[in-house]
Amino acid sequence: MLRTSTLFTRRVQPSLFSRNILRLQSTAAIPKTQKGVIFYENKGKLHYKDIPVPEPKPNEILINVKYSGVCHTDLHAWHGDWPLPVKLPLVGGHEGAGVVVKLGSNVKGWKVGDLAGIKWLNGSCMTCEFCESGHESNCPDADLSGYTHDGSFQQFATADAIQAAKIQQGTDLAEVAPILCAGVTVYKALKEADLKAGDWVAISGAAGGLGSLAVQYATAMGYRVLGIDAGEEKEKLFKKLGGEVFIDFTKTKNMVSDIQEATKGGPHGVINVSVSEAAISLSTEYVRPCGTVVLVGLPANAYVKSEVFSHVVKSINIKGSYVGNRADTREALDFFSRGLIKSPIKIVGLSELPKVYDLMEKGKILGRYVVDTSK
Amino acid sequence: MLRTSTLFTRRVQPSLFSRNILRLQSTAAIPKTQKGVIFYENKGKLHYKDIPVPEPKPNEILINVKYSGVCHTDLHAWHGDWPLPVKLPLVGGHEGAGVVVKLGSNVKGWKVGDLAGIKWLNGSCMTCEFCESGHESNCPDADLSGYTHDGSFQQFATADAIQAAKIQQGTDLAEVAPILCAGVTVYKALKEADLKAGDWVAISGAAGGLGSLAVQYATAMGYRVLGIDAGEEKEKLFKKLGGEVFIDFTKTKNMVSDIQEATKGGPHGVINVSVSEAAISLSTEYVRPCGTVVLVGLPANAYVKSEVFSHVVKSINIKGSYVGNRADTREALDFFSRGLIKSPIKIVGLSELPKVYDLMEKGKILGRYVVDTSK
Amino acid sequence: MLRTSTLFTRRVQPSLFSRNILRLQSTAAIPKTQKGVIFYENKGKLHYKDIPVPEPKPNEILINVKYSGVCHTDLHAWHGDWPLPVKLPLVGGHEGAGVVVKLGSNVKGWKVGDLAGIKWLNGSCMTCEFCESGHESNCPDADLSGYTHDGSFQQFATADAIQAAKIQQGTDLAEVAPILCAGVTVYKALKEADLKAGDWVAISGAAGGLGSLAVQYATAMGYRVLGIDAGEEKEKLFKKLGGEVFIDFTKTKNMVSDIQEATKGGPHGVINVSVSEAAISLSTEYVRPCGTVVLVGLPANAYVKSEVFSHVVKSINIKGSYVGNRADTREALDFFSRGLIKSPIKIVGLSELPKVYDLMEKGKILGRYVVDTSK
Amino acid sequence: MLRTSTLFTRRVQPSLFSRNILRLQSTAAIPKTQKGVIFYENKGKLHYKDIPVPEPKPNEILINVKYSGVCHTDLHAWHGDWPLPVKLPLVGGHEGAGVVVKLGSNVKGWKVGDLAGIKWLNGSCMTCEFCESGHESNCPDADLSGYTHDGSFQQFATADAIQAAKIQQGTDLAEVAPILCAGVTVYKALKEADLKAGDWVAISGAAGGLGSLAVQYATAMGYRVLGIDAGEEKEKLFKKLGGEVFIDFTKTKNMVSDIQEATKGGPHGVINVSVSEAAISLSTEYVRPCGTVVLVGLPANAYVKSEVFSHVVKSINIKGSYVGNRADTREALDFFSRGLIKSPIKIVGLSELPKVYDLMEKGKILGRYVVDTSK
Repeated sequence: MLRTSTLFTRRVQPSLFSRNILRLQSTAAIPKTQKGVIFYENKGKLHYKDIPVPEPKPNEILINVKYSGVCHTDLHAWHGDWPLPVKLPLVGGHEGAGVVVKLGSNVKGWKVGDLAGIKWLNGSCMTCEFCESGHESNCPDADLSGYTHDGSFQQFATADAIQAAKIQQGTDLAEVAPILCAGVTVYKALKEADLKAGDWVAISGAAGGLGSLAVQYATAMGYRVLGIDAGEEKEKLFKKLGGEVFIDFTKTKNMVSDIQEATKGGPHGVINVSVSEAAISLSTEYVRPCGTVVLVGLPANAYVKSEVFSHVVKSINIKGSYVGNRADTREALDFFSRGLIKSPIKIVGLSELPKVYDLMEKGKILGRYVVDTSK
Repeated sequence: MLRTSTLFTRRVQPSLFSRNILRLQSTAAIPKTQKGVIFYENKGKLHYKDIPVPEPKPNEILINVKYSGVCHTDLHAWHGDWPLPVKLPLVGGHEGAGVVVKLGSNVKGWKVGDLAGIKWLNGSCMTCEFCESGHESNCPDADLSGYTHDGSFQQFATADAIQAAKIQQGTDLAEVAPILCAGVTVYKALKEADLKAGDWVAISGAAGGLGSLAVQYATAMGYRVLGIDAGEEKEKLFKKLGGEVFIDFTKTKNMVSDIQEATKGGPHGVINVSVSEAAISLSTEYVRPCGTVVLVGLPANAYVKSEVFSHVVKSINIKGSYVGNRADTREALDFFSRGLIKSPIKIVGLSELPKVYDLMEKGKILGRYVVDTSK
Repeated sequence: MLRTSTLFTRRVQPSLFSRNILRLQSTAAIPKTQKGVIFYENKGKLHYKDIPVPEPKPNEILINVKYSGVCHTDLHAWHGDWPLPVKLPLVGGHEGAGVVVKLGSNVKGWKVGDLAGIKWLNGSCMTCEFCESGHESNCPDADLSGYTHDGSFQQFATADAIQAAKIQQGTDLAEVAPILCAGVTVYKALKEADLKAGDWVAISGAAGGLGSLAVQYATAMGYRVLGIDAGEEKEKLFKKLGGEVFIDFTKTKNMVSDIQEATKGGPHGVINVSVSEAAISLSTEYVRPCGTVVLVGLPANAYVKSEVFSHVVKSINIKGSYVGNRADTREALDFFSRGLIKSPIKIVGLSELPKVYDLMEKGKILGRYVVDTSK
Repeated sequence: MLRTSTLFTRRVQPSLFSRNILRLQSTAAIPKTQKGVIFYENKGKLHYKDIPVPEPKPNEILINVKYSGVCHTDLHAWHGDWPLPVKLPLVGGHEGAGVVVKLGSNVKGWKVGDLAGIKWLNGSCMTCEFCESGHESNCPDADLSGYTHDGSFQQFATADAIQAAKIQQGTDLAEVAPILCAGVTVYKALKEADLKAGDWVAISGAAGGLGSLAVQYATAMGYRVLGIDAGEEKEKLFKKLGGEVFIDFTKTKNMVSDIQEATKGGPHGVINVSVSEAAISLSTEYVRPCGTVVLVGLPANAYVKSEVFSHVVKSINIKGSYVGNRADTREALDFFSRGLIKSPIKIVGLSELPKVYDLMEKGKILGRYVVDTSK
């Protein structure tokens, strides 16, 4: 059975520090093998089994992963339905939080015992024009955790020392896990919307896993938040997180005019975490003139369509926002460390990962699942 | 018959100054009636006839229009095929260059004898959020020359003193006319592409009326220019204007890879002056990662389509660029005054305007027609 | 005697709306004369007397001023000790809040009964390069309220319709008055510091009139605020307003290292509302590398000094921020209307203005004085 | 004797490619020792002698330096008169151009035979907030060539693979050398001035080593250039490089008004390559309102002073610009490769370095000295 914690009730507890420390001590001796979930072909069986502990390269750190978030991207990696081929066999996972247990020979800036995060971008060349200008995610040689590089669904994983995320001592490693991808991604998308404090931002899909993080980041950044989703329960959650105006897409008769009225002209920015093609294209209609529609969700085979005349006359922008860079990651984690972002998680054992995938495929996931690698 | 000057051969001549001055003197006494081209219903007869000289409001100047460019927008205004209704009856035209002959009671910053330009944005409220922030064109109360306000296809036209363009003494009023809309529009689009000197910009439709101006502005701004168009004659013109790489879309087998190869990864910006729906959508494919596709042409009922996954992973922008504001206009005119932009025009009499519309409808226009209001 | 309200105790009260409405009705008939404070030479007697009600020009609105804030600039205008000469005789004041009672013949976008604010920039040419690009305050023909244009220390004052501030119906006109200059000025300074949400900003002079507004705006914009001032009472006020770290300059032994330690490397931005020359220059030392020192206070004959080697190697910026433009004003008022900014005022009668100047000269002012023009 | 080539006469010659190739072949076998210039204490003897060839660390490449520029910073390193202590003993030099002869075990993106440049920033931590955001030069752990890391005044030098500059095959290694520091530095300073094409930029010290590069970069970026320097010969050089207006500071009676008149209001940006304290402070007076004064030269114990009232009311910036980052370097080299920048050099043997220092100390250097490490 899945053990689920109630949304928003897990917090940093007195026992947390000692828990981390105990685990740290127990990892002092690095074993040869470990537990992990591995698959050998796309859509093939997900094996929870003993696999070798990897050896860090000169530029890498070895992290004893304690917890890892589970993301829709992990499902895509397993399915192999994205244009980009995955490494096989593969250990998935790219939201891993743990403790550094070993340093590659050439690593600077880390020491054993530091808390570290494994994120989607495991490493990049650092010398191309994209890496030079803070767009490491766009590096043609990007190495991706849980995709082209074995990821965080194992107890010990390697990460490039430059890209690995620094996590503050004392952080709850289970709650911080989803920040490493979901949190950074929505934070980056909000930055890309290029808003000023006091501007309106609409979150399409406001009460889902990404959306509920986006609402909190937007609030902390001083924006006024309009949320789009369905149902009273979601409206309640949205308001609790700091949202100001909720549009229930099952109830509104004219979404465009309702949104424009509530925001006196349309939101200055729209964050499309929803992957509905229709919802995305609709956002080009209700966005404020001179505003920015941000694409961030990754539906397969979907197109955004925008009517050219209006696009020009309203002078809008449709911007793709991929995962955050190192600075975005540090900043997103900083908001979390300051207690401004609550991460609603359900913890299950790593061995139960196949069940989580099953729920995901059935669309039955609410909030974010986090796997405990010790179980 | 249409009298046409050869492309690029008209320049400021010794007689120019005296010509302007003579005309200025002759306008000292403002007549009650004047010649203009007016229509009473969309697609109705274009009358070249005597009409009253308008009286400037307190905030307006009265301009003795010497020359006016003819733009595709003028055709749309006559046809009435855009979503925005036109004033009727209407005197069209929004690229008028002339001499100030009278000031409204409350006008500051102008004097009789100054050279002035009439542009698409005749006036705006100046107090809304768009006007406040330099996006006057997006003002909901925008007043448009040759559309909602009688324009430059008459000998005397009014313009809001704040929006009217200041033209430097000694400027050739025929050659400067197309800068007032076509020039400003492509210059603004290039600014919106947000490029650095040394970056690559692709101009789709590089040798047409807008395109040939865009190539020159881009060159003056320090960008490297790739042009897309068809035919050797156009390639020749493109290279003469400063263009570096020409892609003939009738010859290339793979436009995306050819463009990306020539620019080592794709142009950092694309200016779509072409109004082909397919060409516009294609530009989202060949643009460089993190680059910007600018929409600037105004095809009716056309959509830009972009594949969401690539849009996000490549982190591209699709940005609508409408007409320039006052600062863009001043800057675009400044490049012209410095001799960096050549404006290829053909001069005909105002009375011949219906023939120009006819050629436009048949797609037989090369370069820019300018009407001489004295004929 | 000065009647003073306690800091932070005045709020929008039930009677407020009716109070505004009553006053509005009573102004329906515009009198020929009114009460105002006028002086005929610099440092000359301040006369509280009957003066003519001005007539609005075609581009102006006439405002029945209800309340006006009193600013140090008003003292400089009276003293005549700034390089820029004042109009004489002069009615001072540039933080006036009231009701529109008459429109010039050419005014758009206003109607009688609207609430309006008089700000430092009364009007500008709107056609120079500065006006075109949102830097109206830098217009060489700027017309300044209470300096080159009779200001808000009278019951009826004129303002250019483009520059006058729109105030939302239902706003407390006494409390909003200081926002029109003090509020806008610090808000603009914060924008100029070019910070991201989560960045540290230091406010030098954090608990004074400008400083206490700056702390609130900075908090609402998502910044972390370090305040510099003296005394426990000020620390208490600072913390109440949302400030995070307080540095008491009378207690710290090493201000530079204390500030850098508290902010892990120095604040990303510094807002110098303090006019101490030494404090300003010190801020170039403690600011974070790549950070911005904003100058906003206007001490006479003072210099900011920065050591060139450090300035370059730390890559810092020293930026002058003058008063806000129309957009800054709208935004600053919007934060106030949303209840995010509390304006600590003391209300006295306009007739008591000379006593306020006297207190100012003696440095005995705490918070902001607002004059009630009806007394 | 110093052998000097005439300014601007060295160009890429037919023999250049073969010369590079020959040298490349001859470096195939890496020797144990090499020639270099080393000193053991500040201001101590400069020994031209046999020293060991260094071994690259896992993250480093070993470069066979062919040519190295000589910069004033090298003199400061030898004198030890900057606040930052140098490594001792030290091999100076940070403008080295050569050929990669060996790769560290963990190096990606380089191969033996590539052309590479050694720049001031040899390496940085890549994980601090400055490295993350493209401000690697501001990294607290910056490793500096010829200062904290043995530099380019030797035949074989090591450089961090991430920071080493990629030089295009076929480039003249002598001429490109000064681009690696001087060129990148002025290019970065121009970027920091945040100008638009068509804006005016003043170069204070326009015809010196840095200045003459700045004039060319500014021209290539589309700016209009005003140069400040002394003498007709310098004016001639300035105009030849693309400069538009020359102000001879020995002839002008009022520099501020002359500059403001020539640029119709003052330059939008000022690049202070001159290290005169008075000239730097003067630039805060003549800069255009809302303009930017860039500090880039590094005089010892100098202060920039700016009058606060004017600084605020004119809303100017004083910005420190340190050396460029990786992107700046790539871009600056790209302008050079495209033939837009001519680098005026004089080539002497490495053994003659002490004589170059001697000339520098006497202020007798015109243009840039480059040492040939083979002599």
